[in-house]
Amino acid sequence: MSDIAAIRAAAARACGIRRTPLLSSPGLDAAAGRRVLVKAECLQVTGSFKARGAWAAISALPPGERASGVLAYSSGNHAQGIAWAATAHGIPSVILMPSDAPQVKIDNTRALGGEVVLYDRAAQDRDSFGLRLAGERGLTLIPPFDHPEVIAGQGTVGLELATQAADAGVAQADVLVPCGGGGLSAGIALALAADAPSLRVRTAEPAGFDDMARSLAAGHAVANPATTGSICDAILTPRPGALTLLILQRLAGPGLAVTDAEALAAVALAFRHLRIVLEPGGAVALAAALFHADAIGDGAVICVASGGNVDATRFAEAITAGR
Amino acid sequence: MSDIAAIRAAAARACGIRRTPLLSSPGLDAAAGRRVLVKAECLQVTGSFKARGAWAAISALPPGERASGVLAYSSGNHAQGIAWAATAHGIPSVILMPSDAPQVKIDNTRALGGEVVLYDRAAQDRDSFGLRLAGERGLTLIPPFDHPEVIAGQGTVGLELATQAADAGVAQADVLVPCGGGGLSAGIALALAADAPSLRVRTAEPAGFDDMARSLAAGHAVANPATTGSICDAILTPRPGALTLLILQRLAGPGLAVTDAEALAAVALAFRHLRIVLEPGGAVALAAALFHADAIGDGAVICVASGGNVDATRFAEAITAGR
Repeated sequence: MSDIAAIRAAAARACGIRRTPLLSSPGLDAAAGRRVLVKAECLQVTGSFKARGAWAAISALPPGERASGVLAYSSGNHAQGIAWAATAHGIPSVILMPSDAPQVKIDNTRALGGEVVLYDRAAQDRDSFGLRLAGERGLTLIPPFDHPEVIAGQGTVGLELATQAADAGVAQADVLVPCGGGGLSAGIALALAADAPSLRVRTAEPAGFDDMARSLAAGHAVANPATTGSICDAILTPRPGALTLLILQRLAGPGLAVTDAEALAAVALAFRHLRIVLEPGGAVALAAALFHADAIGDGAVICVASGGNVDATRFAEAITAGR
Repeated sequence: MSDIAAIRAAAARACGIRRTPLLSSPGLDAAAGRRVLVKAECLQVTGSFKARGAWAAISALPPGERASGVLAYSSGNHAQGIAWAATAHGIPSVILMPSDAPQVKIDNTRALGGEVVLYDRAAQDRDSFGLRLAGERGLTLIPPFDHPEVIAGQGTVGLELATQAADAGVAQADVLVPCGGGGLSAGIALALAADAPSLRVRTAEPAGFDDMARSLAAGHAVANPATTGSICDAILTPRPGALTLLILQRLAGPGLAVTDAEALAAVALAFRHLRIVLEPGGAVALAAALFHADAIGDGAVICVASGGNVDATRFAEAITAGR
């Protein structure tokens, strides 16, 4: 079960994880018309918060089970988090990636020590292929979000935020969190409920892929109509996790959604005012703060910037748009 | 006089200053062929370390003198640091800028609360114009580097580095520092001499503008043959400061110099592996670590990344070069 005790235990084990800064700037405040504080998880090892959940899940395995290694399905940030955390624990990791995944993501995962196994999307069923591989080699599957230890690991962001918001003099605020399957949002919500209950999590998603917002509104899980079609590739998931939805139903406010253009504009403003690199999916919470002010309570707002693994060409386009 | 007591006093007064993270990444280590730790001063308020010296100098003024306001000459990062620190102290700041300065720097300085006064480079002598203005309005001039309190403020980077390097398990290393007039290098050198004497400062400069390296080698101040001609605009100064050179003669190792192309390549690698935004002048120390390994001792190296105030077009070119 995910709870505050699991999060504190994950934090106590997280010796490889970086405490990321809470950034702000007068220029960004002026652009938003309010005080904006940005939790820069793009500065986390591997460039996203996913390293936290990966470390938590791997470090929680019984030593005998852990030694055989771990398996993950991912073409993105979870892959890099798992590869890094496994290597740091001295164990093998196998990352199952579609053979048409971008070469740079394959290269990055390998550079972090992951064994990349490619499969043919059209000819092979990923899950059965993965299960067979896990069985043959004794690997433990680490899912990307719907797993108690993964949620606990992501929740360590919330522990840091509770302290950092207090240090910044922010007692009450919405905390906007980029949301794919909901692991990061759920973990932060649990941590804040314990340590800073006047800070309220609200999910931010790409418009058209706001399954979590619609599920929270409907009171039950609702899937997205499509699985591709936004530049926010890091947070396109077919439906909310079961565990994460239960937590967010209890603790989160209404979800927010932003357009791709708003996400790109947020990338450009974070470049200019905070000097950090965000990927579009990592910028949706900041985009919500900047462009959906009417949907957020008065006063300061806290945004999690969840990742910065972005192609140089895309980033260059985002920061020079309109010039 | 600049000494460790002045640096500790500056740190104790620096309530508006951010403690910046010491970043690293397996990918950057692989590119450098050694462990590289990057002190990300681009994440400092106003986007560069200059906020530290500005805060230190303004907060050290006697209250009566301070209330009348401060004056600075700068078209760059010092201007923004002074404007920000003055506004935070509730006092006026006047920044004297050439009328042909880039509009974005004028705008940024004004946005931070500075009163920008333009002068005509061809028709007016800056120093006499500034002195007259200071006399008429009772403003105190804050020089960009050759000033004990400015050096003490920049030295707070060194106090943080001493702790952060120890936390990272680095006991002995070269600390490469981007160098214009030498305020940052001198301040860090003083702090490390007290708190981590096995960490040695070495200046990094643009090739052709390596007045500090040549002055250290010659044993006396040597000017640069030119004042323009490198993209590293933030650190092009005509000659070393008198105070800073004295400190660095005593405490620093031999200086290093890098080409503009190397600085741009370092900007691109910091984007990719650390997800931070550097300006070319802020990346020269990282460039020295990456491309002049033979001039640096074995083992880990620490690089200060001094600023991130860069035009979007230039940054886009740097990260997409060769694609």
